[in-house]
Amino acid sequence: MAGFTQLFVPGPTNVPEVVRQAMNMPMEDMRAPDYPTFTRGLFADLMKVFRNETGRVFIFPSSGTGAWESAITNTLSPGDRVLMARFGQFSHLWVDMAERLGLDVDVVDVEWGTGCPVEIYAERLLQDKEHRIKAVFVTHNETATGVTSDVAGVRAALDAARHPALLFADGVSSIGSIDFRQEDWGVDCAVSGSQKGFMLPPGLGFLSVSQKALAAAKAAGHKRCYFSFEDQIRANDTGYFPYTPAVQLLRGLRVALDLLFEEGLEAVFERHNRLATGVRKAVEAWGLKLCAKEAKWNSDTVSAVLVPEGIDSAEIVRRAHYGYQTSLGVGLNKVAGKVFRIGHLGWVNDVMMCGAISAAEMALRDCGVKIQPGSGVGAALEHYRLSAQPSLAKAA
Amino acid sequence: MAGFTQLFVPGPTNVPEVVRQAMNMPMEDMRAPDYPTFTRGLFADLMKVFRNETGRVFIFPSSGTGAWESAITNTLSPGDRVLMARFGQFSHLWVDMAERLGLDVDVVDVEWGTGCPVEIYAERLLQDKEHRIKAVFVTHNETATGVTSDVAGVRAALDAARHPALLFADGVSSIGSIDFRQEDWGVDCAVSGSQKGFMLPPGLGFLSVSQKALAAAKAAGHKRCYFSFEDQIRANDTGYFPYTPAVQLLRGLRVALDLLFEEGLEAVFERHNRLATGVRKAVEAWGLKLCAKEAKWNSDTVSAVLVPEGIDSAEIVRRAHYGYQTSLGVGLNKVAGKVFRIGHLGWVNDVMMCGAISAAEMALRDCGVKIQPGSGVGAALEHYRLSAQPSLAKAA
Amino acid sequence: MAGFTQLFVPGPTNVPEVVRQAMNMPMEDMRAPDYPTFTRGLFADLMKVFRNETGRVFIFPSSGTGAWESAITNTLSPGDRVLMARFGQFSHLWVDMAERLGLDVDVVDVEWGTGCPVEIYAERLLQDKEHRIKAVFVTHNETATGVTSDVAGVRAALDAARHPALLFADGVSSIGSIDFRQEDWGVDCAVSGSQKGFMLPPGLGFLSVSQKALAAAKAAGHKRCYFSFEDQIRANDTGYFPYTPAVQLLRGLRVALDLLFEEGLEAVFERHNRLATGVRKAVEAWGLKLCAKEAKWNSDTVSAVLVPEGIDSAEIVRRAHYGYQTSLGVGLNKVAGKVFRIGHLGWVNDVMMCGAISAAEMALRDCGVKIQPGSGVGAALEHYRLSAQPSLAKAA
Amino acid sequence: MAGFTQLFVPGPTNVPEVVRQAMNMPMEDMRAPDYPTFTRGLFADLMKVFRNETGRVFIFPSSGTGAWESAITNTLSPGDRVLMARFGQFSHLWVDMAERLGLDVDVVDVEWGTGCPVEIYAERLLQDKEHRIKAVFVTHNETATGVTSDVAGVRAALDAARHPALLFADGVSSIGSIDFRQEDWGVDCAVSGSQKGFMLPPGLGFLSVSQKALAAAKAAGHKRCYFSFEDQIRANDTGYFPYTPAVQLLRGLRVALDLLFEEGLEAVFERHNRLATGVRKAVEAWGLKLCAKEAKWNSDTVSAVLVPEGIDSAEIVRRAHYGYQTSLGVGLNKVAGKVFRIGHLGWVNDVMMCGAISAAEMALRDCGVKIQPGSGVGAALEHYRLSAQPSLAKAA
Repeated sequence: MAGFTQLFVPGPTNVPEVVRQAMNMPMEDMRAPDYPTFTRGLFADLMKVFRNETGRVFIFPSSGTGAWESAITNTLSPGDRVLMARFGQFSHLWVDMAERLGLDVDVVDVEWGTGCPVEIYAERLLQDKEHRIKAVFVTHNETATGVTSDVAGVRAALDAARHPALLFADGVSSIGSIDFRQEDWGVDCAVSGSQKGFMLPPGLGFLSVSQKALAAAKAAGHKRCYFSFEDQIRANDTGYFPYTPAVQLLRGLRVALDLLFEEGLEAVFERHNRLATGVRKAVEAWGLKLCAKEAKWNSDTVSAVLVPEGIDSAEIVRRAHYGYQTSLGVGLNKVAGKVFRIGHLGWVNDVMMCGAISAAEMALRDCGVKIQPGSGVGAALEHYRLSAQPSLAKAA
Repeated sequence: MAGFTQLFVPGPTNVPEVVRQAMNMPMEDMRAPDYPTFTRGLFADLMKVFRNETGRVFIFPSSGTGAWESAITNTLSPGDRVLMARFGQFSHLWVDMAERLGLDVDVVDVEWGTGCPVEIYAERLLQDKEHRIKAVFVTHNETATGVTSDVAGVRAALDAARHPALLFADGVSSIGSIDFRQEDWGVDCAVSGSQKGFMLPPGLGFLSVSQKALAAAKAAGHKRCYFSFEDQIRANDTGYFPYTPAVQLLRGLRVALDLLFEEGLEAVFERHNRLATGVRKAVEAWGLKLCAKEAKWNSDTVSAVLVPEGIDSAEIVRRAHYGYQTSLGVGLNKVAGKVFRIGHLGWVNDVMMCGAISAAEMALRDCGVKIQPGSGVGAALEHYRLSAQPSLAKAA
Repeated sequence: MAGFTQLFVPGPTNVPEVVRQAMNMPMEDMRAPDYPTFTRGLFADLMKVFRNETGRVFIFPSSGTGAWESAITNTLSPGDRVLMARFGQFSHLWVDMAERLGLDVDVVDVEWGTGCPVEIYAERLLQDKEHRIKAVFVTHNETATGVTSDVAGVRAALDAARHPALLFADGVSSIGSIDFRQEDWGVDCAVSGSQKGFMLPPGLGFLSVSQKALAAAKAAGHKRCYFSFEDQIRANDTGYFPYTPAVQLLRGLRVALDLLFEEGLEAVFERHNRLATGVRKAVEAWGLKLCAKEAKWNSDTVSAVLVPEGIDSAEIVRRAHYGYQTSLGVGLNKVAGKVFRIGHLGWVNDVMMCGAISAAEMALRDCGVKIQPGSGVGAALEHYRLSAQPSLAKAA
Repeated sequence: MAGFTQLFVPGPTNVPEVVRQAMNMPMEDMRAPDYPTFTRGLFADLMKVFRNETGRVFIFPSSGTGAWESAITNTLSPGDRVLMARFGQFSHLWVDMAERLGLDVDVVDVEWGTGCPVEIYAERLLQDKEHRIKAVFVTHNETATGVTSDVAGVRAALDAARHPALLFADGVSSIGSIDFRQEDWGVDCAVSGSQKGFMLPPGLGFLSVSQKALAAAKAAGHKRCYFSFEDQIRANDTGYFPYTPAVQLLRGLRVALDLLFEEGLEAVFERHNRLATGVRKAVEAWGLKLCAKEAKWNSDTVSAVLVPEGIDSAEIVRRAHYGYQTSLGVGLNKVAGKVFRIGHLGWVNDVMMCGAISAAEMALRDCGVKIQPGSGVGAALEHYRLSAQPSLAKAA
């Protein structure tokens, strides 16, 4: 097949060339005497992306799922009551994990296409006078439906109820791409992974924790192994890891963090919003709808597009893959066959998004969806053009 | 800057990932005892791309310009009369080289946007009863104007006149991308370079010669050095080179040739025609014109687009570069400021071209050209969709 | 610092150039419709390295430690009695994990420098008429002391006692480098990782299990998450993974497996023995001793060298690192300061080992150890020369 | 074949990892509007390596041979008398080129193993009252015999004779590795290439010229093409090149220059001397002799080792290649079969040289040369150890 394969799934995302270059390395000894000089900078800078100022961050050789497990198994105990909402495949899987790990989960099911029901959470927290709820979970960005939830709102609900529960946020497909403020929002366990906003291959799970989460873990006193806070803390404090870390990805992480800071986190968020808005304008121009029910739920990292009745969205994804060397995201679980997804997070820019939308247009038309050729990409590119960053305009 | 820079100049072209991987190599000894096993396959396979069956091919560590120089200085002598046509920057430069190297050049100037004037050549050859013309030159694909010339027609003119002149073809931006048949067309010196249809970084000049060219070189008996046929032949016959070759590019060439044969040369040409046709449909949808005056001159590797009066095409290229991380080609020499160029050769596919056209649309509108957003890319993608390769359709 | 850094720790090991090339890739979608074609070959070929014919293998995005945890937590239950031996840092850590995960560990402590006490195991198994012991653990290759244990002997002890306990083997620093026969030896859970004999960066944990282990896991019925057999089985059976796999390493694994099969596993083992023997001859020529107490314990993947009284082995490692850009392994735990380690596993050859031994000689002399310069490397190279593979001799 | 292939030919040399990383790049447009920012830094820094302060430097997509040709054909004219010395394969080839290009060469043949005969040059220059000699040539480092010549001495001879001839130096295997001072020594044309001290793959020819050489070229007024000074000057002055440059190598060159300046040129020269001295001590310990007849001729970049009568040095090189994956240099021309060569230039360090010497010992013994195993490498490593850079000692 000639030409680049276009990757627009909502993760893994495109790896920047300089990150690729950095990972193209000879192997190294992670017990070298000067290795801590390297790792200390990594930990400090990773904290900045989470906007965690007073806690600490763990880097596991795992997927984000492993970081979820670490958060739960270190700070909570089987039988603990937790409050969770389910509105997509990833919030669904998180509930499933919590249940399998023995938590007593109070699940609030809301319609897929909406997000975390802050008002319901507020009520439950107010009602929970005895503070039986030990932790409240929010999926910051539901990757399956393209919905972003209001983590600050959940914090406000906890504060209003003067509730001491821990706050867990799944930021796998948000952190490093859209605004996330662990310290301001009082998030105790924030989970992410290398393969989305961090622009790396999959293989690292990040868990950024507050002092409160660390205290909870100490109090729980569980003997964990692979995902143990205690083992990580002891080793990380010396600049090393309790077992062999994924050294190649760590070298890539160094460069990825440099890229984020060079562009500036605010500029990164702004870019994601511009790119996402263009995609949403394309969807509108096609006469189609997003899975997200209202604009307030719109995610700036992934858009799930509803296809017309009678069309199988999986066919669109297959067609884009086989016909146009373009990877789009399939619909998962309840929205299987009903949505296809366009990831617009990480190392992406205007022209790449125009390519993604063009591929989607070709695949949509191939599958019988009546859209005007060029309508979506035209709407998107006009948005990109008009909102082009001032710095670029100046250079030109 | 986030995201990939999009490269759509008519060379250097995008390097396939597997070629990049192959060139990411530790250095090696080009005098190793088993090195000839490697080089012999290279020479044999390179011949196949030129469709040269009975001659031989030289690989110089140089640009294509060096291969031009080798062709001229080995087979011709100062004072020799040659017939050349000038209709773009590269045919212009070739004439310039021929003159500087002391040839007596009969230059036929034709309008930029047209190609080699076969009828005029035919006349001159018929008139040249004494066979003073020692060589006839054709720029197969004029990269500056996006014009492809009829090499077979020139061969026919030579044959019709029973003229013994050598036939030189500049195939830098055609060979490996559009149909070229050295043996069938009786081309004596065919020049190309690594950075276009061969999908490699620049740094290799290819010169594919006929037995007639070899005999002419022998007869001329010039003492050349760097670009000497004689030195190359002596060393190549043992599987080595007369001086240090560009070993990294040679390893890349191996993989690039494999890619060409895997896809099949005919399929490669067909793909270039499909992609070019899409670009031409975009230009038409914009209401703009190509520099190529008639469809018969249309190049399948590069399109030079005329911008409306009062617009500076260089601004469009600058805007695409600074605003949209996209490299388009500027207008050169006589068409500077009047055309911008879209390269559609090498390792490219449908979605990449949609990205290129999108970038051009943004830059055109930024510079005040009145085109409908999405019109060009819509026309192109509909063409791509409808003409999608059957093999892909089947897979879906 | 000029020149290559020399890596001779017992893992991570040197990554072959072709594996590096394969991992230098654009990111890809691990949910692509044709991804299973790729993964199925991987699983099948990975089984061959473990010589597991009837079970299955799991690939976790984790270190080998994660694979340990998966083995224990899926097949055993808290309170289960297990038999383990401790004779080095890694067998020590394994005991520690088993205890933390709630097993009732019968630990047999033997001198560091010896290996698994098969006779003691045999006794305990014979005595355990009620079959309270649910699993027997063997550290096949203790990386800290350079000791290889007799897994087949433990199997024989189990068989002699007609004992139904599961057999666990830690093959992190042995599998793919020295003979390991899961099927023949009746190993139920064999653990390894990507960064030793598999010649990859760290980041993959491998767990190869027997049908008996799978049945034990089913019977135990534990609800696990990240390291769950059940989730892996369900997803792997469709060619996918339950959460995002480390796709870059998987592409590297493909090439690493190809390399192992190309050379042939028997030839790989033979090479490791040759290289190790050379190192042992060097140690003898220096007048030093290995940590391994007897020749039967000698490991073919790593040699731990005892330094004379009064010398701090950590200084030797630091000196090699800072003075000679060479990574040697430090002594860990009980042998800290007493041994330094030379890894000779993975993608290594004769000349590389001569370099390692040379670096060790320089560092030893710098630290005041009285050895004859060139004595060790001379002994090694003479061994390498005389035992050079016949295939090479023939080529010459 | 397992493990790294060891490269110790006197070029191409080992490419540093960071240079490899930099060359692992997507293709780029060498006509981009901001490309000159990049090229200007390159030219300025390249001048520093030649220690050329007032002239300029050209970068050709060619081998060093091309830079030779450029120097001769731009500044001299057929029939011009030049003074050259011949004492090895590369000085031989240079004479050959000069003759083929029509110069009237006064060749001084001296014994291979000695260098440029400064006294004879001095005499000839004094005798040449009419200044018929237009240029004097010195092969600074004869790669075939491992001999370094006294360029400053030749300058002194010119000055003593008040002779206006141009001074040409071939620094292909010296510049960037051993002391070279173009400005101080009044060298008018200094030639080098990318694949030796510049630590890059082959493919770039460097020609660093004085104002006097530029004036000579202007006066000569030759119409050259590929290797024309005039074309380069016109394009380089705008930050571009007259034809497509080898952009991938240029990006590598950027990093290679950074490496040279980071280490410091003086430190680089000192390192080459240390490494070379170690190799010479090894040769002495073997009881063998260098091709260089006296210590004053010893090259710090390559050692040519004479093998005993009755031994074919080519066999040693073959044996090292096939048996030990190590590339040593063969004997060329008059010393074919009599010497093998060890390159010790570029990105090399102590342990790499110990590996090279070990490989040579194995191959020597395989071929029947009676040397004591370990004698050479022992002598070398003891030298390396005792002369280890103070900075390293401090770090340890």
